[in-house]
Amino acid sequence: MKMGVVGLGLMGGSWALAARQHSLCTEVIGYDANANHMNKAQNLHITDRVVNSLEGLVEGSDMIVLAVPVDVIEEILPVVLDLIDDKKFVVDFGSTKLSIVKGVGSHPKRSRYLAAHPIAGTEYNGPGAAFSELYKEKVIILCDTVMTDDDVTEEFSRWCTMLNLTMSELTAEEHDLHLAYVSHLSHVTSFSLSNAVLKKEKENQRILELAGSGFASTVRLAKSSPEMWTPIFMQNKEAILASVDAYMEEISTFKNALEAGDRERIYRFLQEGNEIKKILK
Amino acid sequence: MKMGVVGLGLMGGSWALAARQHSLCTEVIGYDANANHMNKAQNLHITDRVVNSLEGLVEGSDMIVLAVPVDVIEEILPVVLDLIDDKKFVVDFGSTKLSIVKGVGSHPKRSRYLAAHPIAGTEYNGPGAAFSELYKEKVIILCDTVMTDDDVTEEFSRWCTMLNLTMSELTAEEHDLHLAYVSHLSHVTSFSLSNAVLKKEKENQRILELAGSGFASTVRLAKSSPEMWTPIFMQNKEAILASVDAYMEEISTFKNALEAGDRERIYRFLQEGNEIKKILK
Repeated sequence: MKMGVVGLGLMGGSWALAARQHSLCTEVIGYDANANHMNKAQNLHITDRVVNSLEGLVEGSDMIVLAVPVDVIEEILPVVLDLIDDKKFVVDFGSTKLSIVKGVGSHPKRSRYLAAHPIAGTEYNGPGAAFSELYKEKVIILCDTVMTDDDVTEEFSRWCTMLNLTMSELTAEEHDLHLAYVSHLSHVTSFSLSNAVLKKEKENQRILELAGSGFASTVRLAKSSPEMWTPIFMQNKEAILASVDAYMEEISTFKNALEAGDRERIYRFLQEGNEIKKILK
Repeated sequence: MKMGVVGLGLMGGSWALAARQHSLCTEVIGYDANANHMNKAQNLHITDRVVNSLEGLVEGSDMIVLAVPVDVIEEILPVVLDLIDDKKFVVDFGSTKLSIVKGVGSHPKRSRYLAAHPIAGTEYNGPGAAFSELYKEKVIILCDTVMTDDDVTEEFSRWCTMLNLTMSELTAEEHDLHLAYVSHLSHVTSFSLSNAVLKKEKENQRILELAGSGFASTVRLAKSSPEMWTPIFMQNKEAILASVDAYMEEISTFKNALEAGDRERIYRFLQEGNEIKKILK
């Protein structure tokens, strides 16, 4: 089996490295709209060879993985489906699912596509950020598998098992609603924290000096790529707006309690937040 | 020199362990209002001996370190100053400074007190969380040192240098304003995130499954102790309220841009947040 990876950044590059390390395919073919990324991917032995077009990649591959920003996935997934035959299949790694699956809902090759989202990542990007262990012991969500041919889901699941990924199934709609809360919202709060602090603390050296590991951890996601995250926010707009509203209600509860100097209410608010300890060790 | 540590949790316990490891004193005496903490501290060799009263601790110590919640510091600092002679001195490790220094502003022994805040910590607490490396290569802020006798600042600075801590000076007022942004606000946003997600995701297993390292990192501070953080928020109320307002303005900017579907504005917002990369590597 030959695998084609579209997008040779953190996600696609790491997937390619893991596949090569576990000898899951005979060849990894890469394509990236950024020629520098292709050169780097070759130099870092992420790919066996790179091609200069999406067509070239589909032609040489049995399995095609789309690891590009979600707006680009939405754009190229129908193109890839137009190009493949009944033996090939395509999987996307986008952080949103509903808009993407809707976009190919009535495509005649819909069943050769599997919607997936590996819950893995770092705040870094590009081929240089890729590493073969990124997916190890992580969860991957497969969405709307009833729409996908069994042989596709089975073959991809075999890969996930070999790479030590735990599979979980959700509908695309459920996926987007939950991810708004446990992933997209965290990015909104981190970016907002970064902006608030940067505007206040013009002397950068001071931030570095006063910031402990707590601030660093809370603001870490603000290092994430705007190219990747702008389309995620746009595609999951309604669910994210609802999560932002719920969040602003919480922060207002805190603010009102503090304004009132209500020690009891503040304590209770923090105690409720502490419950997260029972879930995330 | 003999050191007395009031509060044998993460901060006080780690300070005691580091002092013992570097042989900075001949004896570490401990006192904690929680008898279990004292037993644990003895068992973990954090202290050489423990005493059953603040009076006993002050009597046996040349240097007294207060590593208790900031409301307790405010309460016991004048008591400790009442008890000491002109050779002893006391240092507090509170995360707020203005309210504490004001409380002893006119105390006849004010000059035997040094206001300090080591920028170090984890989300865990109690003697079991203490470790001797907590302060290594961290920053410690010394406040209003003009109010403190030179021999006190010099002796404490010698300790900091031996423990590989970098010293920085601020007024208590500056300290509280800056810390509201780079520390206290992060705690507010983490607790609020935790509460918003916990209310939405009643099925805890689902959170665990869907939450990536990004959510874990952003929500980490919500594991912090309500006993420690309620008084910090109360004592630094005005500065924290101002930082929360500035933060809510940022998140509103994002929300408005997303509601309007304004890709350009969202992108710019994220790009601005990305600037934090230049400061925190």
